[in-house]
Amino acid sequence: MTATDPAPTRPIWLADDKKRVQIIDQRMLPHNLVIVDLTTVDQVIEAIGEMMVRGAPLIGVTGAFGVFIAVQNALERGDFEAQVRKECLRIKEARPTAVNLAWGVDRVCAAVFSKTLPADCLAAALAEASAIAEEEVDNCRRIGVHGVGLIETISRQKGGKTVNVLTHCNAGWLACVEHGTATAPIYKAFEKRIDIHVWVDETRPLNQGARLTAWELGQRGVAHTVITDNAGGHLMQHGMVDMVIVGTDRSTYTGDVANKVGTYLKALAARDNNIPFYVALPSSTFDWEMTDGLAQIPIEERNPDEVRCVEGLCPDGRVEKVRIVPENSRAANYAFDVTPARLVTGFITERGVCGAGRDQVLALFPEKR
Amino acid sequence: MTATDPAPTRPIWLADDKKRVQIIDQRMLPHNLVIVDLTTVDQVIEAIGEMMVRGAPLIGVTGAFGVFIAVQNALERGDFEAQVRKECLRIKEARPTAVNLAWGVDRVCAAVFSKTLPADCLAAALAEASAIAEEEVDNCRRIGVHGVGLIETISRQKGGKTVNVLTHCNAGWLACVEHGTATAPIYKAFEKRIDIHVWVDETRPLNQGARLTAWELGQRGVAHTVITDNAGGHLMQHGMVDMVIVGTDRSTYTGDVANKVGTYLKALAARDNNIPFYVALPSSTFDWEMTDGLAQIPIEERNPDEVRCVEGLCPDGRVEKVRIVPENSRAANYAFDVTPARLVTGFITERGVCGAGRDQVLALFPEKR
Repeated sequence: MTATDPAPTRPIWLADDKKRVQIIDQRMLPHNLVIVDLTTVDQVIEAIGEMMVRGAPLIGVTGAFGVFIAVQNALERGDFEAQVRKECLRIKEARPTAVNLAWGVDRVCAAVFSKTLPADCLAAALAEASAIAEEEVDNCRRIGVHGVGLIETISRQKGGKTVNVLTHCNAGWLACVEHGTATAPIYKAFEKRIDIHVWVDETRPLNQGARLTAWELGQRGVAHTVITDNAGGHLMQHGMVDMVIVGTDRSTYTGDVANKVGTYLKALAARDNNIPFYVALPSSTFDWEMTDGLAQIPIEERNPDEVRCVEGLCPDGRVEKVRIVPENSRAANYAFDVTPARLVTGFITERGVCGAGRDQVLALFPEKR
Repeated sequence: MTATDPAPTRPIWLADDKKRVQIIDQRMLPHNLVIVDLTTVDQVIEAIGEMMVRGAPLIGVTGAFGVFIAVQNALERGDFEAQVRKECLRIKEARPTAVNLAWGVDRVCAAVFSKTLPADCLAAALAEASAIAEEEVDNCRRIGVHGVGLIETISRQKGGKTVNVLTHCNAGWLACVEHGTATAPIYKAFEKRIDIHVWVDETRPLNQGARLTAWELGQRGVAHTVITDNAGGHLMQHGMVDMVIVGTDRSTYTGDVANKVGTYLKALAARDNNIPFYVALPSSTFDWEMTDGLAQIPIEERNPDEVRCVEGLCPDGRVEKVRIVPENSRAANYAFDVTPARLVTGFITERGVCGAGRDQVLALFPEKR
C-alpha cells in the first residue's frame, strides 16, 4: 500500500491480476493500513484464524475466496478434485465456530464440482465467491435502505438537529463487505445529508469500536466520538443518544440477540431512558432453531490476556501490547452476551424492519415457518 | 522502597522521623510501588493535583497533613501565621472541587491557631491531621462491620459457597486510609474466613479497578478476577454475581449516587437480575442539600486523551501510554454518572445499613433533619 493508492472501501477484493485475493489486515488498524495478498490456502487459513479478517459475513466471503485459491493452486495436479476437497476441509477448520465459514466454503465447493473441466471449475469458483460477496453487499445495502427511515424520522422529530446514534463493537463494512450491518443505516443517512453523529463504544477488550468503527467512520467522514464502554448510560440519561444500533453474531428468531459483550448493558440503559434499541442483521444471522437465546446460545470464553493487556500506538510509532493489571491478578474474558428480546425495539433486516419476536420475524420471513 | 521493607498498608503515613509525610504514588501502581516523601507544601500540592493520591477521604487527609508540613516549614519565620494561612489557601486550591480537601485543611488550620506558641501549633497540627486520618479509618472500619452482615447472610443462603461481589472503580484502602469504603465489608468478610471472590471492573478510562483494586485485593490475598466493564451484565445474567458494592463521590441524602462512570449500567443490570446493589460511604459523602442527583450533581468532563490512550507495562518493563483510537478521532470523557435512588438497594454507612431514600437516611442521621 503506497501513499498514492486510494484507501480500500472493502476489506477483501480480487487483485487486478485476477489471481491474488487481497485483504486488509484488520489487526493492524487503525495505526497501520496493511494490505495482505492471499495466494495460498495456508495464507487464507492464517488470515481467518489470526483474525486479520473478522466478522461473520467477511469470514464467509474469505472462506469462499479461499476455495477459489485452492482451485487455482490445484489446476495442474492429477488429484485435482481430492486436493480441492482436502483444502476446503482445512479452510473450514480455521474457525470452526463460524457458521458462515462452512456455508461459504461449501457453496463455492459445490459450484466448482458442478463443472468438469478444470478451467470451468476455476471460473465457477470465482463466480460463486464473487456472488456470495455481492449478496452480502446487497443484503447490507437493503439493511441501510430500511434502517435509514428510522433515522430520518428522528431527524424530522428533532427539526433537523443532529441525530446521535450509539453503536457497540464493529458491525461496519470491515466486518461485512460493504455498508456493514449496524453502520448501513448510518452511511445511508450520511449519504442523504442527514445531520448524524455516532457515539462509538470503544468495546473492550479488543477495542473494535475504538480501532475499527472509528477508523471506518473517519474514512467516510462521518462525525463520531469514541467513548468508554462505561459512558453510554450517562449519555442516554442526558438526552445525548437518540437511538442505538448494533450488529449481532447470532439472534434467535424469537428475538434474543447475542452480540459483543456489553451490548446487554446498553440495551438496559436504552430501555431505562426510552431510547430505541435496534439490531441490524442479514437474515442469515438468525438462528431458526433456538427459542431461548440466554439459555441456548453458547458464549465463547476467550484468552484472559485480551483483558489483561491493551494494544496501541506508542509515542515513538511502535505498536505495543501493554499490561494493565497486576502481574498476579486473574482476568476473565466472556466475549459475548445475550440481550433478551424484551429489550430490543426491533430488527433491521434486508427485508425490512420488524419487532423482535417470533411472529414479527416470521411475518417477514414466512418461508421459515 | 527496598525489597525488604514490608508493603505499606496505608496510602499515607508519618515517617519514623515524625517530620516527613510519606505516600504511595498511586499513578505508578500496579507496576511499581513508589513511595514519595512530602516535606514541602509544593510537594503536597503536586501529590494532590497530579493524582498521586486520589479518593475523597485520602485527599482530605493529605490536605490535613499538608497543613502540618506548612506549619513545620514556617516555624522559624517571623510571619508564621500569615505564612501558614497562605499555604493553607494554596493547598485547598490543588483540587478545588474536592470538598474533603478544604474541610481537612480548614480543620487542621483551626486547631493550629487555637494555640499560640509555635511548638504547640506544630503539635496541634500533627494531632489534628492524625485525628482526621483515624476518624476516616474508624468510619471505614464501621462500614465494614455493618456491611459484612450482608455478605454473611448471602454466604449462609448459599450454604457457605463462594460469595461473588462485583465492584467498580477503586473505593478501597488506597482511596481512604484503611479498609476502604466498598472494600471494607469485603476485607471484613475475608478476615472472618467467609469464602469470598471479587469481580473487579477494570473501570476505563483510568483503569482504577484493574490497577488499584486488583492490586490492593492481591496484596491482602483476597480472591479476585479482573473483567472488562462490559462483562458484568453477562455475569449477573448467569448467576455469577451475588451482590454489587460500590463507593461514591457524592450521594444525595435522597438516595441518588454519583460514582465513577459506568456505575449506573451495573445498577441497571443488578436490578434486571434481582441482585442487591449497595453503596458504601461515610456520612461525610452525603450531600445534605441536593434532592435530585441526576439534575443537580455536576459531572466532571475530563481530558479526552484519557479515553484515547491506555497506560500499561510493556514487555520490556517500561510503562508506556499507548493510543488506541485513530489519530483524528475525537473522544469524550465524562468521569461520573448518577445512579438514581430507585436502583440502589441500600447504603452501608458508619452507623449502619439503610435504604436509599430520604426517610431511611434521616432515620440513621437524625441530626441532619
